[in-house]
Amino acid sequence: MTELTYRATGVDPTRAEKSLAQIRERIARTRTPEVIGDIGAFGGLFASPGADRVLVATTDGVGTKLEIARLLDRHEVVGTDLVHHCVNDAMAMGAEPLFFLDYFSTSRIDPAVFARVVGAMADACAAHGCALIGGETAEMPGMYHPGAYDVAGFLVGMVAREAILRPDSVSEGDVCIGLASSGLHTNGYTLARAIAARIAGEQGRDVKEALTTPHPELGGRTLGDALLVPHTSYLSQFRALRSSTHVRSIAHLTGGGWEGNLPRALPAGLGAVIDRGTWEVPAIFRVLAELGTVPEVDQWDTWNMGIGLVVIVPASDAPAALRVVPGAVAIGRVEATSGPRRVRWAA
Amino acid sequence: MTELTYRATGVDPTRAEKSLAQIRERIARTRTPEVIGDIGAFGGLFASPGADRVLVATTDGVGTKLEIARLLDRHEVVGTDLVHHCVNDAMAMGAEPLFFLDYFSTSRIDPAVFARVVGAMADACAAHGCALIGGETAEMPGMYHPGAYDVAGFLVGMVAREAILRPDSVSEGDVCIGLASSGLHTNGYTLARAIAARIAGEQGRDVKEALTTPHPELGGRTLGDALLVPHTSYLSQFRALRSSTHVRSIAHLTGGGWEGNLPRALPAGLGAVIDRGTWEVPAIFRVLAELGTVPEVDQWDTWNMGIGLVVIVPASDAPAALRVVPGAVAIGRVEATSGPRRVRWAA
Repeated sequence: MTELTYRATGVDPTRAEKSLAQIRERIARTRTPEVIGDIGAFGGLFASPGADRVLVATTDGVGTKLEIARLLDRHEVVGTDLVHHCVNDAMAMGAEPLFFLDYFSTSRIDPAVFARVVGAMADACAAHGCALIGGETAEMPGMYHPGAYDVAGFLVGMVAREAILRPDSVSEGDVCIGLASSGLHTNGYTLARAIAARIAGEQGRDVKEALTTPHPELGGRTLGDALLVPHTSYLSQFRALRSSTHVRSIAHLTGGGWEGNLPRALPAGLGAVIDRGTWEVPAIFRVLAELGTVPEVDQWDTWNMGIGLVVIVPASDAPAALRVVPGAVAIGRVEATSGPRRVRWAA
Repeated sequence: MTELTYRATGVDPTRAEKSLAQIRERIARTRTPEVIGDIGAFGGLFASPGADRVLVATTDGVGTKLEIARLLDRHEVVGTDLVHHCVNDAMAMGAEPLFFLDYFSTSRIDPAVFARVVGAMADACAAHGCALIGGETAEMPGMYHPGAYDVAGFLVGMVAREAILRPDSVSEGDVCIGLASSGLHTNGYTLARAIAARIAGEQGRDVKEALTTPHPELGGRTLGDALLVPHTSYLSQFRALRSSTHVRSIAHLTGGGWEGNLPRALPAGLGAVIDRGTWEVPAIFRVLAELGTVPEVDQWDTWNMGIGLVVIVPASDAPAALRVVPGAVAIGRVEATSGPRRVRWAA
């Protein structure tokens, strides 16, 4: 009878190590003084901040943006996105990033793809002074379609106890400062992909062709390029705001769009009135909405529509906020509300 | 033209929230005094343990054990496994668990399955005094086969700086104490599944039938039952050992089996000689090896073969170690080595 070995079943425990070896230097560059020991131990070691600090932990994926990145052979964006998404989530609690770990799961590791994804994560970590101290690479034959993979990121940051951003600190009349997004970031891609599939079908082309054809309404860019812009990290803007204003709370506009996220930065009983005339919705959202005949409420409940982060400050601090962050816009204000929907459109 | 909405594409942002609502109380029971605020914020908050401590971070999945659990409708085991795997990895650095986050990814959330998996995680966290402070639930249509899902866990623990377990502290002559595993734990399931598929094929049955037929060599248990025993957590044994002996280092025998893990607990130049006659390899491993005609080297390079954790102590502490942990066995000792393989079999 034929012998069965682990390798014969499609799992090669050394493949992950070999893939990792390619990017060891880029990972090493994420090292900060608090890191103790080397990667490869059973756990990553990081000197704890003092007891006056609070740890902020967050985990995220990048959703089906993965599938577009894979289709167009643009794997780096996935790694960048994952780190930026986590950095923003921790920052929404007031935190600076400390360290990051990743989970990479696929049916059969492609070392080149792995190195591109995790290498980009390492670079994004290094750019944020965040140490990449561990990761798990899982090879699960039969679980994923050939070439498909999933990634998850885990980030721990820290904030001084008195600097934790608290929705409870928000009052009626506070101002919502909007920071521009670079596109869909990492949310609403299943809808975007359905739209791409529909137009491909209508035009008798495949999805890849539909994604790689220059589009006049996108200024000649392709839909694929517009969909694969990396998730913006707002850490530098946040630092500028924190040093010049009293940041009350922050909403990171991700899955669930406006209604799904802005209320998370507000106390019970308060909502926000947002004037959509204060910024221009980027072309990618208008194009997708038109191609897919997406109802307006669904657009705003799914996508960020051009604003990736909403920072809430006292009205008296709004001018300072707008001054220290070029491009920031006062998009609305906090108001009392009693309805089931807490985001009201002024225009 | 038909409107496209996010729900029409198969993603329902409220499904994850509804699923979570079912297990909110079980999650609440994991709360420890260090937890600040509530789940649902952009990040979980946890009071820093202080600058004399070191944080230990680890991430794991459960591999294709997922597929067997799913086939046999035994989803709870996956949640328990994930927590126990992470607890053991952090413990291998000397750490006590502090908090945990999970990532759950699927094509379409089944609220009942989600509640069983994540509910079991919460219960396992509560049993370890570990707070479940966050998670991400991703719905990615088309990424997974119907019903399939993946999970990743992320755990942060802490250890006093002087109590970090360091392979460098291990010397020639130190004793390897073996703690029994409950089965395969979470590694080598792709090989186990290939074996189940082969015997099913030979017997003209489907895999589920092959997994649910009582097996005489397993004492009448089924292969499925033997494969779905939860990953053992060794935290209580570790605490007993730490309080009575000088624990030098620990190897958690997971992916890569003996050669893949035991050397990780040893400094360069040292290996271990292990007497395999000191414990009985559990029936599940013998049955799998026989059914699959698995070469001996592959068995030991893939599975834990009955020992889930190897704790290295000075020879003078071995009697105390065996006394405080009932069932622990002195399985070998540390020796100088120069070969490419660092685990040598004495018998």
